Amino acid sequence: MSNTFGKLFTLTTFGESHGPAIGGIIDGCPSGVELDVQAIQNELNRRKPGQSKIVTQRKEPDEVKFLSGIFEGKTTGASIGFIIENVHQRSKDYSHIKDTYRPSHADYTYTQKYGNRDYRGGGRTSARETANWVVGGAVAKQAFPEIKIHAYTSSVGNIFMEQTVDEVDFSKIESNAVRCPDEVAAHKMINRILEIKKQGDTIGGTVTCVIKNVPVGLGEPIFDKLHAQLGKAMLSINAVKGFEYGSGFKGAKMKGSEHNDLFNEDQTTKTNLSGGIQGGISNGMDIYFNVAFKPVATIMQHQETINSKGEIVEMQGKGRHDPCVVPRAVPIVEALAAMVIADNMKLYNSHQ
Amino acid sequence: MSNTFGKLFTLTTFGESHGPAIGGIIDGCPSGVELDVQAIQNELNRRKPGQSKIVTQRKEPDEVKFLSGIFEGKTTGASIGFIIENVHQRSKDYSHIKDTYRPSHADYTYTQKYGNRDYRGGGRTSARETANWVVGGAVAKQAFPEIKIHAYTSSVGNIFMEQTVDEVDFSKIESNAVRCPDEVAAHKMINRILEIKKQGDTIGGTVTCVIKNVPVGLGEPIFDKLHAQLGKAMLSINAVKGFEYGSGFKGAKMKGSEHNDLFNEDQTTKTNLSGGIQGGISNGMDIYFNVAFKPVATIMQHQETINSKGEIVEMQGKGRHDPCVVPRAVPIVEALAAMVIADNMKLYNSHQ
Amino acid sequence: MSNTFGKLFTLTTFGESHGPAIGGIIDGCPSGVELDVQAIQNELNRRKPGQSKIVTQRKEPDEVKFLSGIFEGKTTGASIGFIIENVHQRSKDYSHIKDTYRPSHADYTYTQKYGNRDYRGGGRTSARETANWVVGGAVAKQAFPEIKIHAYTSSVGNIFMEQTVDEVDFSKIESNAVRCPDEVAAHKMINRILEIKKQGDTIGGTVTCVIKNVPVGLGEPIFDKLHAQLGKAMLSINAVKGFEYGSGFKGAKMKGSEHNDLFNEDQTTKTNLSGGIQGGISNGMDIYFNVAFKPVATIMQHQETINSKGEIVEMQGKGRHDPCVVPRAVPIVEALAAMVIADNMKLYNSHQ
Amino acid sequence: MSNTFGKLFTLTTFGESHGPAIGGIIDGCPSGVELDVQAIQNELNRRKPGQSKIVTQRKEPDEVKFLSGIFEGKTTGASIGFIIENVHQRSKDYSHIKDTYRPSHADYTYTQKYGNRDYRGGGRTSARETANWVVGGAVAKQAFPEIKIHAYTSSVGNIFMEQTVDEVDFSKIESNAVRCPDEVAAHKMINRILEIKKQGDTIGGTVTCVIKNVPVGLGEPIFDKLHAQLGKAMLSINAVKGFEYGSGFKGAKMKGSEHNDLFNEDQTTKTNLSGGIQGGISNGMDIYFNVAFKPVATIMQHQETINSKGEIVEMQGKGRHDPCVVPRAVPIVEALAAMVIADNMKLYNSHQ
Repeated sequence: MSNTFGKLFTLTTFGESHGPAIGGIIDGCPSGVELDVQAIQNELNRRKPGQSKIVTQRKEPDEVKFLSGIFEGKTTGASIGFIIENVHQRSKDYSHIKDTYRPSHADYTYTQKYGNRDYRGGGRTSARETANWVVGGAVAKQAFPEIKIHAYTSSVGNIFMEQTVDEVDFSKIESNAVRCPDEVAAHKMINRILEIKKQGDTIGGTVTCVIKNVPVGLGEPIFDKLHAQLGKAMLSINAVKGFEYGSGFKGAKMKGSEHNDLFNEDQTTKTNLSGGIQGGISNGMDIYFNVAFKPVATIMQHQETINSKGEIVEMQGKGRHDPCVVPRAVPIVEALAAMVIADNMKLYNSHQ
Repeated sequence: MSNTFGKLFTLTTFGESHGPAIGGIIDGCPSGVELDVQAIQNELNRRKPGQSKIVTQRKEPDEVKFLSGIFEGKTTGASIGFIIENVHQRSKDYSHIKDTYRPSHADYTYTQKYGNRDYRGGGRTSARETANWVVGGAVAKQAFPEIKIHAYTSSVGNIFMEQTVDEVDFSKIESNAVRCPDEVAAHKMINRILEIKKQGDTIGGTVTCVIKNVPVGLGEPIFDKLHAQLGKAMLSINAVKGFEYGSGFKGAKMKGSEHNDLFNEDQTTKTNLSGGIQGGISNGMDIYFNVAFKPVATIMQHQETINSKGEIVEMQGKGRHDPCVVPRAVPIVEALAAMVIADNMKLYNSHQ
Repeated sequence: MSNTFGKLFTLTTFGESHGPAIGGIIDGCPSGVELDVQAIQNELNRRKPGQSKIVTQRKEPDEVKFLSGIFEGKTTGASIGFIIENVHQRSKDYSHIKDTYRPSHADYTYTQKYGNRDYRGGGRTSARETANWVVGGAVAKQAFPEIKIHAYTSSVGNIFMEQTVDEVDFSKIESNAVRCPDEVAAHKMINRILEIKKQGDTIGGTVTCVIKNVPVGLGEPIFDKLHAQLGKAMLSINAVKGFEYGSGFKGAKMKGSEHNDLFNEDQTTKTNLSGGIQGGISNGMDIYFNVAFKPVATIMQHQETINSKGEIVEMQGKGRHDPCVVPRAVPIVEALAAMVIADNMKLYNSHQ
Repeated sequence: MSNTFGKLFTLTTFGESHGPAIGGIIDGCPSGVELDVQAIQNELNRRKPGQSKIVTQRKEPDEVKFLSGIFEGKTTGASIGFIIENVHQRSKDYSHIKDTYRPSHADYTYTQKYGNRDYRGGGRTSARETANWVVGGAVAKQAFPEIKIHAYTSSVGNIFMEQTVDEVDFSKIESNAVRCPDEVAAHKMINRILEIKKQGDTIGGTVTCVIKNVPVGLGEPIFDKLHAQLGKAMLSINAVKGFEYGSGFKGAKMKGSEHNDLFNEDQTTKTNLSGGIQGGISNGMDIYFNVAFKPVATIMQHQETINSKGEIVEMQGKGRHDPCVVPRAVPIVEALAAMVIADNMKLYNSHQ
């Protein structure tokens, strides 16, 4: 397993959704940061289940407890240990999936790789793990507060928001349950998710993220280009199938004469198809990227699948699942982006 | 700088296009591999300039010389040092771009990050570096020969090949200059590139890669998921703007009932929207992904830009450049994929 | 901070002696290991305070709680989170050392490095951290049970045991409070420590460690030689000033004709001045090494020192401290050796 | 294999003594360093064979060629590739040791670990590798020129110099062939080595190293304490059997009341038994340590040993070998110390 994220600002995590707690250790946070614990909890609340009618109705308080690395309200430079207790972990019966390999889940691959599997609620593959990441990201945000990170839902199924990254009013992201700052699109997305939920089905979507106020010079050529690190981080999130930054896949259809970002005299660029990164290094313009999420694999419909003996069995999803992960993925995307930036700020400083 | 790729099978590289040589060190190659040096050279020849009329007409022999780690034709387990001499590095005058920040190049970001810049031919940012990667990948392929990796050009500008990954005849990839196995599309792509070249312009495209015969169990949750490692590798290639695997961005528009890959009794799946990876771990099905390349930034047209003093200057690309990187990117994509697989084979073995 | 130990079998830790808990995350433990939690607790009991009259009389139950990575009694391959609560952390007043830099402690260096300091009980510098290591080592021992690791006290002050590593009866290590398997020397050591304690002073000593049944081939040239990894691990323990393996510093006085270990026909060696390692790689003979511990810096005598303003102040150690760390260091040395071996077993497997 | 040294200032190396060249890649050197290549060559000359009558009489020019990372005399921040050609590598016949396991060499362990072995001149185990380290160290010294590193021979066999680290006149180190700044001891050591050489034997010794002007705050608790990093580095040198810093093994015999370093008002300490490091972090005092080298295993006397079939065979060392490695180890110790310091300067900067 590879449960550590980052090089100099690192997060190492543990936990299954049905153990006593999940948690992590943040290492490399600068000393002297006055931690606003309530702000960290607020980030967790954005991710937690049960927050609106379009997400899973499970209830988990998701309260973070810090165990070390903070003294008299400030970080000390020591590693920061934290846990989030699993309050409702015993409420469910998982025996029906014990020997079943659910389609498009990791049941089969984990069993093959490890020879056994914690089948309760997905074990280590549960997206509950991402609560740990939100804590890490919230600390990273406070360690480098000048950098502003805004993620939002940019599509659900075939419904895309109309505004470009330049036009978005970030203050509207939290104004609706789907976290889309385009109110017209948001309304359609919410209705689409409710409709899908009624069908016992699920649907995919995309999250867009914009990072502002990044200093020039972040990113380490050759093999730790800033966008490559961001891409790897985003591809670590459950259900993610793709990552593109700047012009992305559209850029592959363009001509150089259309795509080049011409400079202004103040070293900004007239356009930003580069997405704020050139040669793997931030150029001071906004960094932005899109992340594609597949539809959740657990559906409330009958499916045929196999068990561990290779026998065909009938199964149907039970319990409370998200019809669309995208609204809850927004804070997760921000958290990972924040940790990538924090890590690169430290790498950048190391060269001084 | 971060010039090392991989964890257990690693490649560390150096070199600018206008120094005496580029090169690298491969560490962690299993001992006892009978190296076919000609096969490695053949991979380099697929990448090298001047190989056809649709790529740059520069001439470089790109001959690899191994300096260590091989004894009596076999790898010894010691680190493998190699160099590729830059034969034609002194032929060109770069004084016209010495103080100029070329649009959508890394001139500005390197100068800001490092305080100076090797302006000859792009210095360390030159795609010449990828010759080193091709050597690393060719060794990785030979270390794990049972795994087959096939990349090909799947689009140039708005021209997309029609066949899906399942339909492709890999034996046709090398049958045309653009490395597209769909002959009809290949013909159109070549014409499009020649037309673009005549305009002094450049154009983007995509490369698709299929990895066959991957054992079940490669990939390290949580933060080294196999597709996340592949994504990071691909995003390290010059000009790459996006990565998607399996259903990719299309998956974000789908419903769970459409997207789930149902199992056969033999543990294969009826469909493969997962792209051969579930929960970050290979499931034994083909792994496939797409990589988006932007158009080359150096165009043979007049452009306004700025110099290091922030003054507006006129510039025009000179010399011999690729009108489209995609045909030469094909072996680079394969090489990085091969190194990711080799690294994960070793990680996989470490758990036994 | 650098709170992670190891490459493939890793332990990441957190915690101060006066926070709510210390703990850690073990990553890379093979799956399917049936964990004997009581055996882990027994190792912790060997390290814990208050176990005999020659160690500190502080009381801490040091009970480990596992939070993840274990399912139905076996490791799952997921990261293993654990905590050890600090039960008695609030019992003491540290205001007298708040602004004081204790001689030969890390108060001054931490304050300078981090700009602040958790002054309660040494904060992160407290040897309480080593309880986390004992947990990691105990899991490592169970993951690779065929390898046997025995550490013992080989000297206290000027009292050295007479037996060589070949002569030691490991079953006697736990038969006395000082953990010296030579009963005559043990008796003298205990008396010496009691005498020193009465003086309000402290005393140094050495621990010797023998690792048996190591397969041939562990250790990674060039920069991760097995003995170099062991040395770094041992030098990480609080109060350690030196490390030597095989002939050690005595070897530096010898001639090659005396020092060479001649082979037997079965590939064992007639002597073992090499200490079981040649060229950084285990040769199948016993690995053995010595670790030197300085006397504990906290003494119950008056000392002059300075405060954070650079003023001379009087201070006197208070509370319950170890007059000699060596007896409690024995399980710590074993734990770190076990983690080094586990990590190298995995590296070794990665090459297969 | 693990051929990379360091975390942020790294050296990755390759090469066998009998291939065409050895070499390495330095990554993470700050940009803008004006490299004095002659000074680097001078360091190589201190290590090279044939420099005096007490070292091996082999001849190798050991000329370093830089291939990248330097532009207009300054480092660019790109990786620095270099090679050192093996000029005299074909002059010798190694068939007599092809199947023989030399006593106290790594022939047996390499063969077992890797399944094959480059038997010419020790292959990858040759101390020729350390020429690469000297290059890395010489660059590190120039990157952080304010820090002064002085190593010297402090003992040969039973001959110890009398001066303590405080009394040494570093300007005398290079005044004699054995690199001992105490002229009386140096004379005895040289005679001892010549005598040993005449016997066809070899002898061990120790090197002491003093690092001056280290800023307060270098070193990363918990697992990258500065002395632990130095210890691991030194234990990576061929033939090293032990490492101690500050009071070292002598400290293990002392009482706390004798060992504590009391502070002066200016935050220096009255004594320096701590060796410049407290809690793993430099305190601004001189860092000093001792390194123990065993006698060279190749002796010019008859020895019995075994071959790869386990048969007893007679062997006798041939060729030109060092009777004592210590004089040539002095620049190697300095080089590794310089790289550790450079790496930690970068880690230190990363926290700012």
